[in-house]
Order: sequence, then structure tokens, then C-alpha cells
Amino acid sequence: MSDELNLGLDGVLVTESSLSHVDGETGRLIYRGYAIEDLAREASFEEVLYLLWHGELPDADALSSFEDALADERPIDDDVVETLRALAAADETPMAALRTATSMLSAYEPEHPDPEDLDASLRQGRRITAKMPTILAAYDRLRDGDEPIEPRDDLGHAANFLYMRDGEEPDEVAVETLDQALTLHADHGLNASTFTTVVVSSTLADVYNAITAGIGALAGPLHGGANQDVMDILLEIDDSDLDPREWVEEAIDEGRRIPGFGHRVYQVKDPRALILEERSAELADSTGDDRWYDYAKTIEDYLTDEVGLVEKGIAPNVDFYSGSVYYQLGMPADMYTPIFVMSRVGGWLAHALEYRENNRIIRPRARYVGETDAEFVPIDQR
Amino acid sequence: MSDELNLGLDGVLVTESSLSHVDGETGRLIYRGYAIEDLAREASFEEVLYLLWHGELPDADALSSFEDALADERPIDDDVVETLRALAAADETPMAALRTATSMLSAYEPEHPDPEDLDASLRQGRRITAKMPTILAAYDRLRDGDEPIEPRDDLGHAANFLYMRDGEEPDEVAVETLDQALTLHADHGLNASTFTTVVVSSTLADVYNAITAGIGALAGPLHGGANQDVMDILLEIDDSDLDPREWVEEAIDEGRRIPGFGHRVYQVKDPRALILEERSAELADSTGDDRWYDYAKTIEDYLTDEVGLVEKGIAPNVDFYSGSVYYQLGMPADMYTPIFVMSRVGGWLAHALEYRENNRIIRPRARYVGETDAEFVPIDQR
Repeated sequence: MSDELNLGLDGVLVTESSLSHVDGETGRLIYRGYAIEDLAREASFEEVLYLLWHGELPDADALSSFEDALADERPIDDDVVETLRALAAADETPMAALRTATSMLSAYEPEHPDPEDLDASLRQGRRITAKMPTILAAYDRLRDGDEPIEPRDDLGHAANFLYMRDGEEPDEVAVETLDQALTLHADHGLNASTFTTVVVSSTLADVYNAITAGIGALAGPLHGGANQDVMDILLEIDDSDLDPREWVEEAIDEGRRIPGFGHRVYQVKDPRALILEERSAELADSTGDDRWYDYAKTIEDYLTDEVGLVEKGIAPNVDFYSGSVYYQLGMPADMYTPIFVMSRVGGWLAHALEYRENNRIIRPRARYVGETDAEFVPIDQR
Repeated sequence: MSDELNLGLDGVLVTESSLSHVDGETGRLIYRGYAIEDLAREASFEEVLYLLWHGELPDADALSSFEDALADERPIDDDVVETLRALAAADETPMAALRTATSMLSAYEPEHPDPEDLDASLRQGRRITAKMPTILAAYDRLRDGDEPIEPRDDLGHAANFLYMRDGEEPDEVAVETLDQALTLHADHGLNASTFTTVVVSSTLADVYNAITAGIGALAGPLHGGANQDVMDILLEIDDSDLDPREWVEEAIDEGRRIPGFGHRVYQVKDPRALILEERSAELADSTGDDRWYDYAKTIEDYLTDEVGLVEKGIAPNVDFYSGSVYYQLGMPADMYTPIFVMSRVGGWLAHALEYRENNRIIRPRARYVGETDAEFVPIDQR
């Protein structure tokens, strides 16, 4: 038992995992050994979920059954919709509404397995994963005064989510972009929200408890949320009279911090940012509006070439391009982090159940530095 | 960066704290230096909350304002009641219903402070603490087909909870017993649920996120819940034809594990168990029914004197007497862990905000043991 303080648990090894690995020096991210670039560009998000949850990529038959199961599990109970309606009337954030609705889903869960039954726990997690887009699309409509649109079972996970937002079949570039973004965010080692789900799961609490807790952690601005800040910057550039290059020069001169740069693990450009940058360019081509790609690229180039941030190991992270990608998909800013949840739930579930295979309840210590012998004085003598 | 694996984070120091300290060898538990025995017997639960949250015991004026604030904050929004009604119709557990309703409360929170504003965060946590008994009493009535009873503002925290269950003013022994039980469960170092709230809070997520996550962790049978198992044993004894001494002899002969014994931290009898044992005896005196106290005491004496468990460091823990205490207060078994939440929320909030004073996002590592260079094969070639 060491007396060293591990604030933030930096570098502390909690468990073994074969789910994902980040090489921060070379900018390489793998899921179960597969390079994120291959998975994002060549596999669907459903294939990636299958890989994370079942340990291998599915063949065509396995994928088809898996897709069917997810599609079947998309509808949510009417009472969940009524709670979402109440939350919308109270002007709740989509992130908090997702947390409440995910928690509420457990009431409608058909299986109540023993904690050792990891297959059943996985099915529970699959149901949550299937229903999250339904919750989010419904909530986004309800707060605009529109009724929810029922999920379709003939569309993929990404396409159906886009469809449920406006009832229109989404175009291919949009679907492919969201699908890739979901893959890119699905897992990333023991980040704070994944670790939260592991801690909760280590008590043998069910996956509704673990995943609801994970949403809570991802709601923190130090974890999710930086992509909204990046998008705010891009909108500020769009509103200003300066061209983007002038804007960023002035911002740096004024000492402003540019969000979306730097990462605790990566010392080079985040491989996810590279792929999202491509998608942002694709979206710009497809819509004919290249402002958002252009502003982001101009900032990145300036900070790289003129300020030398990247040389110092402060490079664009995943949030730097994801905000403008979601913006180009028509998402309101406060939906960016909930979309992150739609994806990361895959990693949460995989880690929570992997830890269970060799479970030990997680209970660290605090070094007690308070008083040790306070004398109690009754209230009438204080 | 050490390469040692810290499964369960046993003994790993995450932070400094001046909230509570457990000496497992001597069986001493203190909150901010005060012995748990003094606090349980001589202070109210409200005084203990004030101590944990504000660093010192209140004087009479401070306590009075604090009690008023808590009492004012007891009512819950009608829409929360409607969600509880839906959950009751779906036969949700009280623990999961409490998780969902606590999460939902954030929609009705009047303050939305910056994360640095710890005073406002504390007020948010106080509101949650004030409303939890209202949620639980309402839920317990709704699932029995009864309408909720409005909270009263002229009763203490424990008394008002008992009142809201049946609309009758509770007797003094019952109030004092619940009040002491709440004090005894309010804090206990960085246990799994407290650590969960700290991890969530370290992302700068608000206290609704942190506390909802804490409920998730406490729902795990390795954390909360053992007191239900103890009560099941006592009910089994009551149902059997054997006298309690014979029952326990036979159970031990059959190799049955008796719940409520042993603790990761205590090697001697848990000081909280000692106090709850007293309360169980008081309740038996007050009601004239001493079966539950008697059965528990018989088991404890047998395991201590005949089996020698206590000599081996396996002694009664807090769960061993709390189940029968709650049973004697008329609580259904699935309300025991939710009552634990009503109390531990005090510690969760105190730790979450204490960690914020020197915050660093909690992000440990997993040792990657999976494949590193898997070759991607497109689905049509798998």
C-alpha cells in the first residue's frame, strides 16, 4: 500500500482490457486491434458495436441478425415519451433528458438477469443503445413543439436517427458522416465516463445504472462539450467582419484560448480529427457551403504553422472537427454531446462487462487530513 | 508511471479528504473528527449534514436556518409525481425509481451555476437531499395504489419521511432510530458510490449528474443491499420450526454463508452495527416484539463464541442490524437501500465538492492486452 497521492489517477492501471488502445505518440487508435481508419471508412457503426461487444467482426449473417435486433428494439414506451414531454416543457437540456429517459428505460426492460449473466446484460445494453437515438430525436422534436416520429426498422442506426429528426430520408453523405462519427467516438480506453460505468458495474449494479452514470460523467465540460466551444468560435468568425485568418491572428494576439486543441493522451493530431476533417470537407462539397470546413482548417493551419502549437504536442483533437460536422448535419449545439453518448455507450457497455469477467469492486482510498479528535459539544452549549 | 495492476484500486490514494476516517483495526469512525457515537446519539441528521457540508457543527441559529431551507425544499414537481406513477405502473424497483426521479429533478432546479460556484452547487445538492424522502415516500404509496402525502415543514428530516409514508405522526423511538440510522450511513470514505460521484464531478458535471451516478453504484448488491439478505435470514428463522440457536447451528453445519458479517475495512465489529444493535433493542422494547433483535443477537453470539468468526476479523457490519431496524420501522425490504441513499447523499455531495477544490479529471488507464495489428477484411469477404 503506497502512500503516494494519485490525483486524477493519471497513469494508474486499474485493469486489463482488450478493447481499445491509444498510442498518443504516433496518433494511432485501435479497437480490438483494428485501426480506427479502417473501421470508420469501411465498417458500419453496427459492425463496430458488434466488434466491441462480441470480440470479432461479424460475418454477413451475424451482422444481419444483429442489425435486426437493434432495429426491433428502437421503439420506446409511451410513458417515456410523456416524461420527455414534461422535461421539454421544463426546458431541460437534451443531455439531462437523455440521462433521465435512459434511467427510466429500466422499468420497461424485459429481462432481469443475475449479475453473472453477462449475455443478458449485453442484451440489456443493446436495448439501451437501440433506444438512445429514439429518445434524442423525440426530445429534439418535442422541445420544438413537434410530435416524435416513430423509428423505421429498414434503416441503419445512423440513417434512422437522422430520419427521426425530420421524417425525411437522409442523403448518403450525411448518413456516412454520422456513421463514421459514431464509430470514431465509440471507445477510447478508460476515459472518465467509461471508468464511471466500470466503477458502477463493479458493484454488480445492472447496465441501466452503469450507463446512466456514464451519461452523468460525459455531461461534464472537461469531458464532453468542447466541440460546442469550437463551433461557437466558428460561428463567431462567421459573424465577424474579419476573414478567418485575420480573426485567428487577432484572437491569438489577445491571448484567447482556442478550444479543440490538445489532449491528455495525444501528442500529435488525433487520428479521429483527421477523419472528421475529411468528412467536413465532404459535407462542404455536398452542400456547396465550405465556410465551416474553411474556418476550422484556417485555424488549424495558423496554429500549426505560425504558432507552432502542434510541434509542442498541442494538436487538433476529436472535438476540433466534430462540432462543425454536426452543425453541417443540422444538429443544434446542445445535441453534440448527446450524440457522443449514442456512440460511446458502445464502449461503456463493452468495458463494464469486460471488467465483470474478473470483477473486484472499485474502492480506492482518500488520505485523511482532517481533525481526528474533535470534542462533541451539544447544540445548546455551542 | 508504474506498471503495477491495481484491480479494485485497493489502497490506492486518489485524493486528500477531511470528511471521514475509518480505523478498521479499532473500529473507530469519525466525521470531521467527531466520533460517530456522539453524532448518532447526540446530534440530529440535519446537524450531521451541516457538519459534512460546512465543515463545522452549526450553532442554534445556523441549524434553524438550515432546517428551514431543507423543509422548504421538500415538495417535488407534479410532473415528477406523474413519472413516478408511470414507474409504479411498470413495477419498477424503488431504487431505480429514485434514480430516475433524482435525475428528473434537474429540470426543476432554479440555479444553473458555473462549475466553480461551489456554494450554488451545494444548494443544488441540498435541494436533492431535501426531496429524496418525498420521492421515496410518494413512490412507496403510489405502488400500493395510494396517493402521495405532501411533506410537512414542521417536522425534521427523519420524522417527515415517516409521516409521508402513512400520514400519521411517528412515535419518538421510530424517529430517533431513523435519524440515527441516517447519521450512521452518511459518510464512509471513498466507497464505490462516493468515488463514483467524485469521478463524475471531476468532469465538472453538475451535482444532479454526480448524485444520479452515485445511486447507480449503490444499487449494486456488492455495495448496498446486504441488509435485505440479513432480513431474509431473520424472516426464515421466524418461519422455521427451530429456535434461533438451532437454526444458526444447522445453517453453519450446512455451510451456509451468513450475510452481514465481514467488511473490507473493519477487522472488528463495525461501530455502526453497535449503535444499530442498541436501536434494535429500543424498538423491541417500544413495540413489545423482540423477535428480530433476538434472532440477530443469537446469530451474532453464535458466530462470535462458537464459530470464532470475530476473532478472525469477520465481525458484524452495518448491514447486520440495519435490516431488522428498518423492518421494525415498517419498511418494505426494497426500501432499505433507497433509505441508505437518503443518508449517503450527504457524503456524496461533500466529497464531490471537496474534490472540486483541487480538481483534476479522473482518468486512469487499462493495460491493453488485446490484438495490436488486426487486418481489416471487408464484410463481403468475411
